[in-house]
Parts: sequence; structure tokens; C-alpha cells
Amino acid sequence: MTETSWQPGCPVPIDGVEPRITLAHGEGARLTRQLIDAEIRSRFRSAPLAPLPDAAHVEETGGRIAVTSDSYVVSPLFFPGGDIGSLAVHGTVNDLAVSGAVPRWITLSLILEEGLPLPVLQRVLDSVARAASDCAVDVIAGDTKVVPRGAADGMYLNTTGIGTVIGSPPPGPQAIRPDDAIIVSGPIGRHGMAVLCAREELAFDPPPQSDSAPLTDVVKTLHRVADGNVRTIRDATRGGVSAVLHEWADASELSFRLDEATLPVSPDVRGASELLGIDPLYAACEGTLVAAVAPDVADQVVQALRRRPESAEAAVIGSAVDRTICPVTIRRTLGREQPVDEPTGAMLPRIC
Amino acid sequence: MTETSWQPGCPVPIDGVEPRITLAHGEGARLTRQLIDAEIRSRFRSAPLAPLPDAAHVEETGGRIAVTSDSYVVSPLFFPGGDIGSLAVHGTVNDLAVSGAVPRWITLSLILEEGLPLPVLQRVLDSVARAASDCAVDVIAGDTKVVPRGAADGMYLNTTGIGTVIGSPPPGPQAIRPDDAIIVSGPIGRHGMAVLCAREELAFDPPPQSDSAPLTDVVKTLHRVADGNVRTIRDATRGGVSAVLHEWADASELSFRLDEATLPVSPDVRGASELLGIDPLYAACEGTLVAAVAPDVADQVVQALRRRPESAEAAVIGSAVDRTICPVTIRRTLGREQPVDEPTGAMLPRIC
Repeated sequence: MTETSWQPGCPVPIDGVEPRITLAHGEGARLTRQLIDAEIRSRFRSAPLAPLPDAAHVEETGGRIAVTSDSYVVSPLFFPGGDIGSLAVHGTVNDLAVSGAVPRWITLSLILEEGLPLPVLQRVLDSVARAASDCAVDVIAGDTKVVPRGAADGMYLNTTGIGTVIGSPPPGPQAIRPDDAIIVSGPIGRHGMAVLCAREELAFDPPPQSDSAPLTDVVKTLHRVADGNVRTIRDATRGGVSAVLHEWADASELSFRLDEATLPVSPDVRGASELLGIDPLYAACEGTLVAAVAPDVADQVVQALRRRPESAEAAVIGSAVDRTICPVTIRRTLGREQPVDEPTGAMLPRIC
Repeated sequence: MTETSWQPGCPVPIDGVEPRITLAHGEGARLTRQLIDAEIRSRFRSAPLAPLPDAAHVEETGGRIAVTSDSYVVSPLFFPGGDIGSLAVHGTVNDLAVSGAVPRWITLSLILEEGLPLPVLQRVLDSVARAASDCAVDVIAGDTKVVPRGAADGMYLNTTGIGTVIGSPPPGPQAIRPDDAIIVSGPIGRHGMAVLCAREELAFDPPPQSDSAPLTDVVKTLHRVADGNVRTIRDATRGGVSAVLHEWADASELSFRLDEATLPVSPDVRGASELLGIDPLYAACEGTLVAAVAPDVADQVVQALRRRPESAEAAVIGSAVDRTICPVTIRRTLGREQPVDEPTGAMLPRIC
């Protein structure tokens, strides 16, 4: 960024000592939450924003609609298991689904860098169209902007999703109680590891594959089987399962205890994560959810999820406990209990 | 853009001879329309997208909602009369208003460049909050991404607006008939000239001021007075009044004849445009609309608009005529009739 980009007419002192945005502010972990709390929520205190960080529900004549918006800046644009186009659709559809809404419509806004080869744009748009069709959502409005060479990295997308709220959405993380079971719908950390390995051109064979996929049917199964005993559901994107549980610990004033032996991790992710020293708990998923459910329905839910191909490896990975000094702990396979820290961010930048 | 940004895993040949995105593809004029027609509309043939380029209307239980989405990449971030924050709110509100909807909710997604001073972000967010409050819209959902230094130019915003459709929206440009009057709600080209002069640090005194403002009340007045005789309304953003009339000429298969003597142009814009050789017809407005209305209500509409401070200089600037060889012509003050060309773009990049 040239310093002059915001100088004309701008009295803000640019002196190098004031606080600045860092990559860590974008990673979905502690610094992101702090930035959002301090700068965003404080200014936009609309009631709907408060309980639902990713999808807002608004009352509309005759029903409720849910709204979510995300920008996608993933690098590289294409990675094993997906690309920026399918990722944008899946991410938006999943934010709506976990909030209790049926995704219906999305908007698509493009920021293109001058010089982007047209075939790259075409391939991404084809992918958006295919994913939207798979998810039964219509792309209904859009926008195209072009910035000069060097003012973007190929292309960025924004998708805003609108859905209709069906039935009663889950009450939210503040409803979690001690002994509630924590369930994941499949192997964790696949998207984050796939993007990281593609970006750094790490030649793992086979390369980790992103789990980018719609969660609509998984969420439906969860609600059908748990029937009112779902406390909250989240897609574990930036910051991975760890970030979700830290948020829930804050909201519920409880702690979470995980058991490493039960954590589903695919062999490709396990290999890459051991070599790179990155715990899959911190790596993003884009087609895997985390749910807190009442303990007595947990086994039933897992059995039902395992009958679906996209959640065949669903598992109970831990439970809520009374608040301890650590918001999240994990019992390692050798039996030792360790804290799961909340990273401040920046470990895996630009994975979505 | 580094060429490698989309290479990993991407079989698209990058050989320098294939078509590439140019700045002109983002300017709202001919190349933008061609790109959207060829690449976007062809893939996303949802019915609602077709008639309304900027705001889609969808049937919802008990009513209709309108949806519009825009990314903002304006440079500089601050300019006389506004900034990227207020511009994003006004642009989104205006897209909804001219489509016949009452703006209700907006989403706000940020793409921040690493190193952006926090006070700059705060100033923009304050401006978003103020503009949203002025326009009576709630910011209900959002997202924050950070890209590394050099991968954005300070910050980009995306706002998606949702409104409720009230009454019957105007039928659209295909309903324009010969002799219909073309009305503008105020002086043209102010936003484009303000941003250009701020970016290039041209020291005009006084500097051209952007007209960035909500058009909701102007649109209401127009509908109330013209009562069913409004054919179509547009906010004349990228490409200015010229781009709007060229689109309407295509849709209606008519031509438009303007009269330069009636065109409202503010003294600051007139001075700058004469010196720079830029016709205000091509420069963007962000708080000024163009409307086509039946000829017998035109004077009444203009009188009513002039009673509002934000449209005190409203005027009939021309009329629709049977199709001639030129889609848009203007009678210059010396009496000569000249074609108004449709620029391919790139004259005023990044004005919104």
C-alpha cells in the first residue's frame, strides 16, 4: 500500500507509531474478535447482530429471513478440493445453514485485478455457478470492480446469502450446559491444510484436500434427530475447531474438554500437520461443523450423521464442563491433559 | 499481481496472448456491460437478475424483498463531500430506492490491507455508522478479512442492501416511449470530478464536492407526483448520465436527445471539467438520479423536486425520440447537434 492512498484530504496522522491493522486481525482468532468487538459491534448495535456473529435474522412480513456476508481473499485461487468460487458459495450457504436457515439467494461481487486472464475468471465463475446449482441457491445480483495491477491479488469475491428461517433456530452457545456433548461432522482441519500446502507448494502425496462442501443436509439431519436438543452449531472456518470452542467458552462461561483419541483427522492432514507442526484443531474446515447437543441424544446424532456420506466420520470429541482455568483442554493420546490455546491469529493467513 | 497468484494447481495457460481483464472492464461503460453480458448473465440466468441490473427483487412469504450488492474500491478513501464509508451506504441505499424499494438492512464486509492505520479504519466505520443512521438502515451482518501489504490499496468495502418493495416498481427502460421526458434531480458529474481532483491532487479552489447522498426521499417525491407515469429511474453512477442513457437506448430501442442549455452543472464541476476536457455527462453522480417520465407530468415532477433541498436544481434535460443512428445526441449551446459517444471505459477509474 502506498502511504498516499488515504492521505489526500485525510487529517489522520501517519507516523508509524499508531496502531495498525495486522494480518492477525483477519485470522478469525483472538485479535479478530477484539477488533470486531471494539470497532464494529460498538458502532452497529443492531439487535440482530448481537447473538449471531455470522448470520443475522430479521423479521420480515410473514416470516424471518437470515442474512450473511463474506469476502473471500483465499490464496491461491485454486487448491485441491476447490477454488475461490465454490468456497464462496459453500461458506455462505453454511453460515446460513448452521444459523437455522434454508439458503435461497446469493449475491456475487467481484474485485478483479487488472491483467487477470479472462480464462481464470471464467473458471471461477463456472465454479460459482456449479456450486450454486448444487446448493439450490440462485445468484440474483452482483457487481464487478477492477483495480489496477498491484492493488489486489488476482481476484477477491464477496457473497452475501439470504435464506428463510425454518422452525426455531438453535438457541446459541449461551445455552450450552455442563456435560453437553461436542460433536464434529467429519475430519477436521482439511481446508486450512489444503490451502496452506497449495500456497507453499509443499509436495505431499496425496496433497491434503479441502473439505469445502455444503452442510445444509448435515444440519437438517442434526435437527431432525436431536429434535430441540441442539444448543448451537457452527461451521469451523477461520481458526478451526479451537476458535469455535473458545468463542463458546466465552459465551457459555463453561470450559470444554476434548479427547484426542476421538478426533477425526484424515491421513493426509495428519501427515502434513505432523511434519509442519500445525495442530489440525487450529486449521479451518469449510464443510465440517461443530455442534453442542444434550448428552442423551449425542450417540443417536452421531449414528444418524454417519449414515450420510458427507458426515460418515462424525464423532463426539469431548464435552462441556464447569468453568476451569483453561477454556479448552485436550487429553492427548498418552493421557496427559493439555490446554488448547487460543491463537492470536496469523498462523494460516488467507485461507478463505 | 504476481503471475504465480493463480498458478498453483491451475492448468490455465498464462502466455500473455489470452484476453485479460483491463481497468476499462470496471468503469461501468461498454466493456463492463459486455463482460457482464458475456460472462455473468450467461452463467446466472435467475429470472430476477434480468430486468434489474442493480437490485434484484425476490418474492418472499408475505411480500417482496429487493437485494443489491456492491464493492467499493474508491481511491482516495477520503474526498471532498464524502469517503468510502458514506459512499458505500449511499450507493447501496440508492440502488434499492431507484428500484422501488425502501432500504431496510445492509451488510458490511471489509477487506483491509495489512498496515492500515487503525484511525483510518475507525474514521471510515464512523462514517458508515452515521450514513446508515441518516438513511434509517441497520447494519446487520459483516465480515473482516486482512490481506498482506501490497495485496489491496488500503481498504475495500462491500455492502449488500436489502429492502422491502412498496407498491409497483417502475416498469423499466423498455417502457420508455417517444416524447417521454428525461429528468435529472440535480447537477451532474459531481462525484466523479470530486474523486478525480482529490486523487490527482488538482488544487481547484473550491474543489469539486461529491454529491454522495441518499436518494430515498427524492424517489418518493417522484413516485408521488408522477403517480404511475414513471417509466424508470437510475442513479447515474459509473459512466455518468451518458452510460444510463446508452443502456436505456439499448433496452427501449429509442434514442435520446439532450439539450446542453438545460443540463445542470455546478460551477466547480464546470470549471474543472473545462480545464480537464472531461464532459460532466461521463462523470459519476452518487446522489443524483435520472428518470424517464411521461411528458405530461414532467413539469409537475420538476417543480415538486425543486421544492426539496437535495433536488433544488432538478431539470428536464431532454427527451426520448424514435431510434436514429445515434443512441444519444446533445444539442450544444451553439445549436449544433452532436452524438454523445458511449465510452469503452477507463476515463475515470476507481470512483466508487
